[in-house]
Amino acid sequence: MTSESDGEPSPPPGYHNGMATLQAIKYNDGSLEILDQLLLPESCTYISINNVQDAWSAIREMKVRGAPAIAIVGSLSLAVELRKLAAPETKKDLHSLVKEKLDYLVTSRPTAVNMQLAAEACVKLSNYLVDKASVDAAEAKDVLVKHLEAKLANDIADNLAIGEHGARDIAKKCVNKDKIRVLTHCNTGSLATAGYGTALGVILSLHKANLVDQVYCTETRPYNHGSRLTALELVYEKIPATLICDDMAAAAMKEFNIDAVIVGADRVAANGDTANKIGTYQLAVLAKSHNILLYVAAPFSSIDFQIPSGQSIPIEERPHSEMTHTGSIRTAAAGINCWNPGFDVTPAQLITGGIVTEKGVFKSDQLVPV
Amino acid sequence: MTSESDGEPSPPPGYHNGMATLQAIKYNDGSLEILDQLLLPESCTYISINNVQDAWSAIREMKVRGAPAIAIVGSLSLAVELRKLAAPETKKDLHSLVKEKLDYLVTSRPTAVNMQLAAEACVKLSNYLVDKASVDAAEAKDVLVKHLEAKLANDIADNLAIGEHGARDIAKKCVNKDKIRVLTHCNTGSLATAGYGTALGVILSLHKANLVDQVYCTETRPYNHGSRLTALELVYEKIPATLICDDMAAAAMKEFNIDAVIVGADRVAANGDTANKIGTYQLAVLAKSHNILLYVAAPFSSIDFQIPSGQSIPIEERPHSEMTHTGSIRTAAAGINCWNPGFDVTPAQLITGGIVTEKGVFKSDQLVPV
Repeated sequence: MTSESDGEPSPPPGYHNGMATLQAIKYNDGSLEILDQLLLPESCTYISINNVQDAWSAIREMKVRGAPAIAIVGSLSLAVELRKLAAPETKKDLHSLVKEKLDYLVTSRPTAVNMQLAAEACVKLSNYLVDKASVDAAEAKDVLVKHLEAKLANDIADNLAIGEHGARDIAKKCVNKDKIRVLTHCNTGSLATAGYGTALGVILSLHKANLVDQVYCTETRPYNHGSRLTALELVYEKIPATLICDDMAAAAMKEFNIDAVIVGADRVAANGDTANKIGTYQLAVLAKSHNILLYVAAPFSSIDFQIPSGQSIPIEERPHSEMTHTGSIRTAAAGINCWNPGFDVTPAQLITGGIVTEKGVFKSDQLVPV
Repeated sequence: MTSESDGEPSPPPGYHNGMATLQAIKYNDGSLEILDQLLLPESCTYISINNVQDAWSAIREMKVRGAPAIAIVGSLSLAVELRKLAAPETKKDLHSLVKEKLDYLVTSRPTAVNMQLAAEACVKLSNYLVDKASVDAAEAKDVLVKHLEAKLANDIADNLAIGEHGARDIAKKCVNKDKIRVLTHCNTGSLATAGYGTALGVILSLHKANLVDQVYCTETRPYNHGSRLTALELVYEKIPATLICDDMAAAAMKEFNIDAVIVGADRVAANGDTANKIGTYQLAVLAKSHNILLYVAAPFSSIDFQIPSGQSIPIEERPHSEMTHTGSIRTAAAGINCWNPGFDVTPAQLITGGIVTEKGVFKSDQLVPV
């Protein structure tokens, strides 16, 4: 296990220029920019999101991804539109507009619940404002904008709490180890959230407590969110880390005595079944058979108490070109059928470590709305 | 699950031109050519192998790969050199030359045993010829050339037998199914052998018996031997097949009720532990937990009775650039460490279907030299 030998500097040049951290979302007074994650790690380019349509397309094309980041970019894109809006005639007009835009944003990607819940909360608030006689249309608009804008700071605060709860729980359960070896899948860091991250936030908190021996990071095919994004964040944060291909996970578990697998979630059902990036279920089975703890880390809002079990979570199927090509290079034989589900469902009983939220660590079969 | 939608014809154009099958190795009267598998599926280009040095480089760079094919190309490259050789002065000179060349060929890649066993058999034959007074140096050279050249036809005959034994055993064990769903990893077909294939040969035999419902073929990162080569062979043979990424194996096992996983082997230890392409161990664990049969298909010569268990099999570590780049496209963040073992070891007890050889199907814990 040696450093990549092509002589490139570490961490990569350019990413620190003017960036306090790897920031997926920049928002300032009605101006929204996102880091185009399709171009990472080759190029660090921000693009403007000027309206809800821009956000929908960026989410659909995965220029921004990660369940929390999707909800934040969607919400902020509506804030951008509302700020530019001339004072609405009536609160009912405003409500119709807001509801229509949010309904549209929810259709961008189906599996993560966060955008849907954000939309529901915003519509509820708008309904409340419609009914409240003392608030006029202009004031209602301001309240909605502030509500939408608050998501950014709230998400970072939640992630810091997730990191702390998760790190404490893992350290407690691995009390006989000086340092801990963890494996993670996909990207759940700064780039998937407003900042700090969920599963990768837990790892960052472990690292800040000087408890990380090594992080094993899967490539996460077909979109390489692990090798392109998580590896970038690990290098950036100077956390000792090793990239593996997805087919090396079991071999790594056996070879390196990994202590815990930590992943994110796109939606957790009421019974604890968890939809997350394709490959998570596989890691859960492998972790179980190697006696390794599996943790899911996600904001509490990822728990969808409306859905009884993982069977009811819709699973997005993605374009086959993601599997058959890397850029312009064909990596699969022409004419082959593909199966490209974006997510899979991990049964609650395989989540042996627990579900880490900003409200604490829950046993996967003991989720209650709190 | 639909066909790739980019409108390309199926099977791909060009591959049938003048080819009776997807032929990795062409040999005719001292002239050896191999299909450059690094260029597949984009281009179907043959390169000349004029001596042992050419073969060593082609094997090392994986222009030709697959344990049986490596041994055949190595052996044939020596045949090419010997045919061009002026009549040797003495059988001892001939023996020294042959031994030196074979020792060198064995160093090309360490994990597969086939080249090593082929070298040992040839050296043994050469020793015998040295001792045999009735054979002169020119005759000894001819005998050695014929011995080396025989590998090509022998391998195809062995593979046909492997295919038949394997298909019969699987059909017997899945007797309550009209058609069978199998999953395979890496490439073990015509391209990995002299022809027909080992694990993919078993699948081809099942298909010829009209017993295949669907083949699931893993991408097999980092070198994409599944998506580039196996997918090509499956399209070519018109076998119903679906490509999946390596992190989709467990989800596919669950979703599609797969009946058997069939893989090849680079070396089988005396106790049945099997070294094969990285990712095989993982599939074995997943197959076991989903009650799916796991078969290993390989020529009997892949069983190394000198090695008591899998722990003693040397595992090649490959260059990190295989993981960080696809062609000229960087797919991993600069500065990240990598772990890139070419193979892993599957414990015998996970090989629940059996070890399929040209001599029959063996229980993995009941291997005996026959």
